[in-house]
Amino acid sequence: MKRYLFIWLLLLYTTSTFAQQSLSTISSPIISPSINSDGSVTFSLYMPNAKQVSIKGDWIINGSASMQLTNGIWSYQTSRLLPDLYIYTFNVDGVDLIDPSNVYQIRDASTLYSIVMVEGTSHMYGVKDISHGTVSYRWYPSPTLNKQRRLSVYTPPGYESSKKKYPVLYLLHGMGGDEEAWLNLGRVSQILDNLIESGKASPMIVVMSNGNVVQQASPGQDSKGFYIPSFLLPHTMDGEFESSFNDILAFIESNYNVKKNKAGRAIAGLSMGGYHSLYISANNPKLFDYIGLFSPAIYPQKGITSPIYEKMDEKLMQQAKQGYKLYWIGVGKDDFLYNDVAKQRNQMNALHMPYIYRETDKGHVWSNWRDYLSEFITLIFK
Amino acid sequence: MKRYLFIWLLLLYTTSTFAQQSLSTISSPIISPSINSDGSVTFSLYMPNAKQVSIKGDWIINGSASMQLTNGIWSYQTSRLLPDLYIYTFNVDGVDLIDPSNVYQIRDASTLYSIVMVEGTSHMYGVKDISHGTVSYRWYPSPTLNKQRRLSVYTPPGYESSKKKYPVLYLLHGMGGDEEAWLNLGRVSQILDNLIESGKASPMIVVMSNGNVVQQASPGQDSKGFYIPSFLLPHTMDGEFESSFNDILAFIESNYNVKKNKAGRAIAGLSMGGYHSLYISANNPKLFDYIGLFSPAIYPQKGITSPIYEKMDEKLMQQAKQGYKLYWIGVGKDDFLYNDVAKQRNQMNALHMPYIYRETDKGHVWSNWRDYLSEFITLIFK
Repeated sequence: MKRYLFIWLLLLYTTSTFAQQSLSTISSPIISPSINSDGSVTFSLYMPNAKQVSIKGDWIINGSASMQLTNGIWSYQTSRLLPDLYIYTFNVDGVDLIDPSNVYQIRDASTLYSIVMVEGTSHMYGVKDISHGTVSYRWYPSPTLNKQRRLSVYTPPGYESSKKKYPVLYLLHGMGGDEEAWLNLGRVSQILDNLIESGKASPMIVVMSNGNVVQQASPGQDSKGFYIPSFLLPHTMDGEFESSFNDILAFIESNYNVKKNKAGRAIAGLSMGGYHSLYISANNPKLFDYIGLFSPAIYPQKGITSPIYEKMDEKLMQQAKQGYKLYWIGVGKDDFLYNDVAKQRNQMNALHMPYIYRETDKGHVWSNWRDYLSEFITLIFK
Repeated sequence: MKRYLFIWLLLLYTTSTFAQQSLSTISSPIISPSINSDGSVTFSLYMPNAKQVSIKGDWIINGSASMQLTNGIWSYQTSRLLPDLYIYTFNVDGVDLIDPSNVYQIRDASTLYSIVMVEGTSHMYGVKDISHGTVSYRWYPSPTLNKQRRLSVYTPPGYESSKKKYPVLYLLHGMGGDEEAWLNLGRVSQILDNLIESGKASPMIVVMSNGNVVQQASPGQDSKGFYIPSFLLPHTMDGEFESSFNDILAFIESNYNVKKNKAGRAIAGLSMGGYHSLYISANNPKLFDYIGLFSPAIYPQKGITSPIYEKMDEKLMQQAKQGYKLYWIGVGKDDFLYNDVAKQRNQMNALHMPYIYRETDKGHVWSNWRDYLSEFITLIFK
């Protein structure tokens, strides 16, 4: 009797209150997103009283598309989507919502997005049934910034039980991001696991720091509590992060079993993180044999002055003279930073600095950055 | 000019497309939740065309409360809430939604919840500006289950650079949970950081495994992709997890710098995890000096047979004979498992097995489990 009661109570919970603690109440029978056999994706939302519903997604060039109402359900079907990880939100009468039928979502700065993965062999973002590395969230002291700060570390399969020293890629996020961005939107652990397993990438440690010097950690993870995060933060591109980078390097090199030489270090980043990578590597020409700029911002904003950003011709010449094994630059044809990147290439050409340049479709999007990372890590530490 | 263009483009992005990759579009000016000076909390949702909107929250005894419409904005104000972490969802004309104005949310099995923290000195859930431990997601081999599986590990501040051996608490989740539940809803890293810093808890490692033997990892983290998760999974309470526990123990004891004796091991869990802790400790009477059952399920469901669950009088007597330092049981007065826990206590009384019993207000809720953990960890490894 007692056993029946337990099951009955569990079932009661499933239909009435909260999950685990109690259970789900999302009563919607809607399946969304639904990936169709022709490679299109259908998104659906039950919202019978709404007047206007649209969807935004990073595959929609101009930002949003209308959804159509049938029997209380708003829906929208894409054309065939290439295999990729896509982010989207619904807009209901002016309010952006994530998809209530989809528990998978990612926060990027102040915004939550629902996500959908179209599987395929053209990308390395999926979790495969192979050996997995470890993802850790650690805190390090930053004497330069006078605070404890949080970073994310990917260590490859076998790291913990190995005696060998591993090379390190320092991988920097863009504006609005934080130490979780490359893991969540960049699919770092999946890409690394997959490319290490296939032998295309060397086993390496990836360190993802937080480039917003006013933050200790991503929103919600520090003592400021659950504040409303903002996209634009002060002091992100004024030389402070670049000046504090050595605190990160010192922490990693004294706490991990790593190669402590130029051949064992790479730095790369997207957008603002590309900017940081450009200036950190140029100001420290003996540190890195591998530099990757993914859709990088290039020039300081007006009014910003810092020794970090001065005498760049001289610094780049010095960097070239000290030598490096790979300087990799990628940008999309539609990127709003395309022209700045072209100017940077001109400067490097004039200085006879060698680099690999990859120009892709699309613009300032994570799809490109995941691809750039997937290429970059196959070229480093060889 | 170029610098202006960069800023202008950034601002353009903030008002038009995606964040980081582009930026936020959530145009709602609504602030929700808003914690008022009198300790009440106001929740708001702009949804002008909805006919009926309600809120569910774990402080609402009967599950949900109506929200009131004014100028397109639905709102609801609580009475004064005690300091705690609360979870909630809105229901708009039958569809459960998280709060679109609040980026902080937690997935529990198949459901997303918005969260709000009411700060106060009566709980230890907040992030303080103190030393922080490390949280890692690792994979271990389970020969018993014939798969690689994921677990979460909290290591205390100083662990990585210390030579000393640490005690280990194995902390098990409830039905619908996974290896992320105790970290996300249980606030394990915050509670441990705070109680270790204050000297109330000994520095310890906390291992949070996945008790759903059909899963390798939490939804979205294994090769099954972004499937729709379900609350009720097969083989969660039939002895399989308990039989595979030694794989976890073996992994931790060969990969971490830990005490490998009874005095250095504790096991505790909530609900189904309490059930697992009860049977794992009774079947392995030499393993643990500390056992914690938090709102535990006690009895196998009808039809379940396993040697793990048989001869419990005999096993408990053996456990008492082998000895332990603490057997701690906590349950809420309103818990649907209250009577089963009373029967378990009767059985232990009859066997003269000592235990500490904590009976609290409320029922089968995370608020209790965080409190039970906060007490339990101050009593172990002393």
